[in-house]
Amino acid sequence: MPPSAPIDLAGIPLAVKAGLLVGKDFWTTMDAPEYGVGSVRVSDGPHGVRSAEGEELGLNAASPATCFPPAVAVGCSWDPQVAHRIGETVAREARSLGVDIVLGPGINIKRSPLCGRNFEYYSEDPHLSGELGMAHVQGQQGAGVGASVKHFAANNQETERMRVDVIADERTLREIYLSAFETVVKQAAPATVMASYNLVGGLHATENPWLLTTVLREEWGYAGAVVSDWGATCDPVASVAAGLDLQMPGRSQETIGSVVAAVEDGRLAEDDLDRAVGRVLSLRDWVAEPTGSFDVEAHHRVARETAASCAVLLKNDDAALPLGKAARIAVIGEFARTPRYQGGGSSHINATRVDAALDAMREIAGNVDFAAGFTLDGSGDAAALRDEAVRLAADSEVAVIFAGLPDAAESEGFDRTGLSLPADQIALIRAVAAAAPRTVVVLSHGGIVTVEEWHEQVDAILDCSLLGQAGGGATADLLFGVVNPSGHLAESVPRELRHTTAYLNFPGDHLEVRYGEGVFVGYRGYETTGTQVRYPFGHGLSYTTFTTSALRVAATGEASAIVRLTVANTGSRAGRHVVQVYVGSDAGPVHRPARELRAFRSVWLEAGESREITLTLDDRAFAYWDVTDHAWVVPAGDYRVEIGVSSHEICAAQTISLAGNQPVRPLSRTSSVDEWLDHPSVGPMLVDALAGYLPEKDAAMIRDDPAVLRIMGSMEMAKAMRMFGVGDAIPALDELIARSA
Amino acid sequence: MPPSAPIDLAGIPLAVKAGLLVGKDFWTTMDAPEYGVGSVRVSDGPHGVRSAEGEELGLNAASPATCFPPAVAVGCSWDPQVAHRIGETVAREARSLGVDIVLGPGINIKRSPLCGRNFEYYSEDPHLSGELGMAHVQGQQGAGVGASVKHFAANNQETERMRVDVIADERTLREIYLSAFETVVKQAAPATVMASYNLVGGLHATENPWLLTTVLREEWGYAGAVVSDWGATCDPVASVAAGLDLQMPGRSQETIGSVVAAVEDGRLAEDDLDRAVGRVLSLRDWVAEPTGSFDVEAHHRVARETAASCAVLLKNDDAALPLGKAARIAVIGEFARTPRYQGGGSSHINATRVDAALDAMREIAGNVDFAAGFTLDGSGDAAALRDEAVRLAADSEVAVIFAGLPDAAESEGFDRTGLSLPADQIALIRAVAAAAPRTVVVLSHGGIVTVEEWHEQVDAILDCSLLGQAGGGATADLLFGVVNPSGHLAESVPRELRHTTAYLNFPGDHLEVRYGEGVFVGYRGYETTGTQVRYPFGHGLSYTTFTTSALRVAATGEASAIVRLTVANTGSRAGRHVVQVYVGSDAGPVHRPARELRAFRSVWLEAGESREITLTLDDRAFAYWDVTDHAWVVPAGDYRVEIGVSSHEICAAQTISLAGNQPVRPLSRTSSVDEWLDHPSVGPMLVDALAGYLPEKDAAMIRDDPAVLRIMGSMEMAKAMRMFGVGDAIPALDELIARSA
Repeated sequence: MPPSAPIDLAGIPLAVKAGLLVGKDFWTTMDAPEYGVGSVRVSDGPHGVRSAEGEELGLNAASPATCFPPAVAVGCSWDPQVAHRIGETVAREARSLGVDIVLGPGINIKRSPLCGRNFEYYSEDPHLSGELGMAHVQGQQGAGVGASVKHFAANNQETERMRVDVIADERTLREIYLSAFETVVKQAAPATVMASYNLVGGLHATENPWLLTTVLREEWGYAGAVVSDWGATCDPVASVAAGLDLQMPGRSQETIGSVVAAVEDGRLAEDDLDRAVGRVLSLRDWVAEPTGSFDVEAHHRVARETAASCAVLLKNDDAALPLGKAARIAVIGEFARTPRYQGGGSSHINATRVDAALDAMREIAGNVDFAAGFTLDGSGDAAALRDEAVRLAADSEVAVIFAGLPDAAESEGFDRTGLSLPADQIALIRAVAAAAPRTVVVLSHGGIVTVEEWHEQVDAILDCSLLGQAGGGATADLLFGVVNPSGHLAESVPRELRHTTAYLNFPGDHLEVRYGEGVFVGYRGYETTGTQVRYPFGHGLSYTTFTTSALRVAATGEASAIVRLTVANTGSRAGRHVVQVYVGSDAGPVHRPARELRAFRSVWLEAGESREITLTLDDRAFAYWDVTDHAWVVPAGDYRVEIGVSSHEICAAQTISLAGNQPVRPLSRTSSVDEWLDHPSVGPMLVDALAGYLPEKDAAMIRDDPAVLRIMGSMEMAKAMRMFGVGDAIPALDELIARSA
Repeated sequence: MPPSAPIDLAGIPLAVKAGLLVGKDFWTTMDAPEYGVGSVRVSDGPHGVRSAEGEELGLNAASPATCFPPAVAVGCSWDPQVAHRIGETVAREARSLGVDIVLGPGINIKRSPLCGRNFEYYSEDPHLSGELGMAHVQGQQGAGVGASVKHFAANNQETERMRVDVIADERTLREIYLSAFETVVKQAAPATVMASYNLVGGLHATENPWLLTTVLREEWGYAGAVVSDWGATCDPVASVAAGLDLQMPGRSQETIGSVVAAVEDGRLAEDDLDRAVGRVLSLRDWVAEPTGSFDVEAHHRVARETAASCAVLLKNDDAALPLGKAARIAVIGEFARTPRYQGGGSSHINATRVDAALDAMREIAGNVDFAAGFTLDGSGDAAALRDEAVRLAADSEVAVIFAGLPDAAESEGFDRTGLSLPADQIALIRAVAAAAPRTVVVLSHGGIVTVEEWHEQVDAILDCSLLGQAGGGATADLLFGVVNPSGHLAESVPRELRHTTAYLNFPGDHLEVRYGEGVFVGYRGYETTGTQVRYPFGHGLSYTTFTTSALRVAATGEASAIVRLTVANTGSRAGRHVVQVYVGSDAGPVHRPARELRAFRSVWLEAGESREITLTLDDRAFAYWDVTDHAWVVPAGDYRVEIGVSSHEICAAQTISLAGNQPVRPLSRTSSVDEWLDHPSVGPMLVDALAGYLPEKDAAMIRDDPAVLRIMGSMEMAKAMRMFGVGDAIPALDELIARSA
């Protein structure tokens, strides 16, 4: 973008400057024509443009736009090119609709599958989330439309989202909840970062200087503008001081007045105000003329092609899929006719068109009958609908049931309370599976659903999450093998809600939520505690088969490595394979997850093709956040580098030793008895050094049994010595201290 | 006790008063003969008197005393009479040895089975811990010797115990970690409470005014003296100000000097000093003349009888136990000859005598052969020892293996890192079980051990934990059925370490430990998350059988109930049954454990006898700690009252409704949109009240779909109204607010 004309803030009155910090209305920033300042127009996103006007929320009445696969689906692509292409195409529509900034992508971590807004987020894993978010921003901004990475930070539930205080330790925040933001900010420089509704550590995210200034700007070098989530600011002055620039939506004379008053009475530095105004004004760089109408059909094709990369083949016993085009197929379930393809709330797109899977299947195959099986709102005679479906299924060669969560089951604004499908659908699946020769289940949902009630009865499961407006066509392509499924779960599918890692602490109570599971979110928890899930993170089948061989991992420095391996398509169809690289270690002072995703690569392989892949692991792949050093630290030790077909199933592994980059900590007078005893060089000398000062009986006791000293193990050495009357030996320790450095 | 002669503090110089706050030496309080103040003598405890002199820790050289079953065993008795009898007999020995206060009982909660000092604690459950601790204190103090309930508070690990900061929310502290102390303090008025080494919420327990003054004295009404754990004080002045009275051990001119200086320069009020001195002086009430020697044989019998109530019969397939007295028995395992009967550290007793199970078995049966099978220190030829044992077992009718943890595996001062038996013992059990017609395993250990490697191969397991010096005889009695086993687990036995509820957060790092599992400790966690354990809390078999019938639960008030049931001994031997009453509820705003032990009763039943039992449940049985109200709250709703033979196996249950005692919270302008919508009477009126002020289009939208409002669900109502331009409707809400009260 060419930079917009510079504005001299010195010439603008205080009240006008303060006005530039709030919106002119819901969707445009304040203008000040007399000073040459025009508005910037924003719209909700991120998987399409939800362009509304003026004072309207426009949840149900935005301009038509393409509804691409939401983040829940893109996460399952494990393919940054999918995210990039969606971002790029969204940007073209935004330009067409006169929108300068589209609010997205959402990259919060799926801490609990109950979160009502999980459909807007990519994954339970920060590495996958960060790589996909980065690609989306690069695609969107590369096509000239600003992005707003959101919701910063730790906005992982809808329950009390505006009042809940997130209590999480810094290591957990850094490793899990801030990490994807760090990637996107550093690698893709989004136009804006959106500060979230919730509180973090007692402060609203919009008033949190640690988040908005210390971490975001000083550590990560962010130069763009921070915008509040709509209605997220409480104290406008505290927000400006903390590093928030644009407070949306607008029209608030109260906000402007309080900022002006604060500057006038010295509570807010005018430099802070000017800095915020300058950043808001820099958003004008994204303003451009509308480009006229977009190519609706071409964009629909993009939606269909990207959707096809996002569905996950969870189960496929006896090659139940792909379907034969000549088979007698019973399509069952209202979702086949009335697709569930996006989630509710601010991201809701007024789609240009919507493909139903039933229609798309009938374009491919000739013998497709349909029964609704259930209604979306639970009305009607469930038994009669079920009976009709069962009769159809019994008369078919294969039943394909389109099940899932209806719109009303999940949305922005509230969290779910359970993970099962609606009871009428469970009964339907069980009845149909009992009657049909073969049964395939196609799932549509924003948050994941459990499958325990019927999993063993069905032959195949195609998990389509929410595939956007062209998902129906993509689903048909996948079911018939026109396209080979290649998605992988971006979130573990547990057996039961109570097994989920945040279960004990979600959604908190009394306006606090404690992230008691720490860094052990999703598969990091399941793999560490040995909790069985139904389908692990990273799982996804294909109509072809892939193998991994010739793994070679080599350190390339004290805290980095290179990974080489060969992948081969050993089946008879072309397909896309995803190489998943996990790292785990017992080194260092903190309890670390059994394994963590540290690299991945999407690889297209023709039937019979093999290819050598090289991935690099930098220091972050081996690091934990050290709260004492306030830094990423790689401890010296052994690291398991594992290639997984999921987070649970490892197909190749190698352990390497790294020298690490941890700082040296010499002993001191305040080091504990244990730290002394455990010191590799000086520790063994300690007992002798002390013994000379102790009564012979005590000296003999600790010589015979040095473990006796460990009873005082965590006492400071000097304190312990004074307590046992050998304080005069302290100077003698100083020699050992010198040797310990 | 008759009160000791009053001392007028006004006549004592400041430096002398300050001196009274520290020990004269390790085991006596400071005297001041010129003012009529004598010393009080203390000794370590709690399962025996560890009386040492002067400056000696005396870990291995105390005066001989009876080693009763440590708390790990007493916990498994589920019998307050056992704890009471031990406390009473310990007191007699203390009087005999000239000790005025015995430091115990330890009632910390077994948060993780890895804690090296778990053998000194009763249970993972605070109700069981509190009832047993109370009985011990009543027994000991009733016989004239002061107790010191310890370690206050949240001292649940040995790793970094002197420097680690416990980060736990207040509800978790109140419900789990303080609850047993509350019971003992309120019901048994212990002479002293011992402040622990660790920090709680950033402050050393010894300097923590919330713990030592707000909770302990102001809320619980404690009138005794608070003593530091030995060496636990850091800042003597802060300690006095916080409510610590006696700083042990002694001899510190530094401490005295700093207290004097603080009073002189006004940093410490002399009243605070006088209050602490007064409490220390009140300990003189416990001083009495030594009573001469105690009856060693009688006390040994007490040790044997109490021990027999503490062993838990975990498994007994095909009535492998009791052993026949005429059977050809192969006794295997060094522990049969060299008992493991107590733990290491400050509680270590110099026992008057020690019974070996092997000898005791030979007194009962005629055909008992022995092979060591392994050595305690891992020396020797493990394969040869194993082969010898296998040959003996193959030639027997039944093999009885005495396995367990050697002394070196666990102690005060360090935590364990795993839960398995030593590898040579596992190999031995597997080999013997493969060779013997029947195999019985007797376990000795302080912390629990997992049994997965060999559980399916053996016929019976008698879990003896640590039974004290007479445990060998008690074990023989139980094996041959001279006594019927009646203990129940006071701690769950998990299948794997990584399943344990504190696994992810134990023992913390960087000198912090976060109690991330919150209140879901032990069975509270397992039952809530559906984690399978090998043996649940409360499990314990008998040689007879018991049934429960005629359960009737009735509310006796808004927050209390009475439980009636009939228990019967339906077998052919007399035995002791333990009625376990659990309560669970989904009522209220907090996530509560699936069930919690709220009452229990030990009942002796002759063969064929049945008896009606009545237990009462007061408001605490139904309450959670509400952090907003700072009070115990019983929410209105349904409560499951369950009778369990363990925390996992429920044999009778009834649900009752309680009116509860929660305070009414009317709506206000700052209530959230959700709180408005969810209000039972006023909520339904809200949409209409708002609609009159909204543009018709928006009014229609929320009339058609009130869920739209929930997108802003946790926003304060007034803020939301201003954001949507209907701030002028706020006064109209006030009518509804008035109606909501």
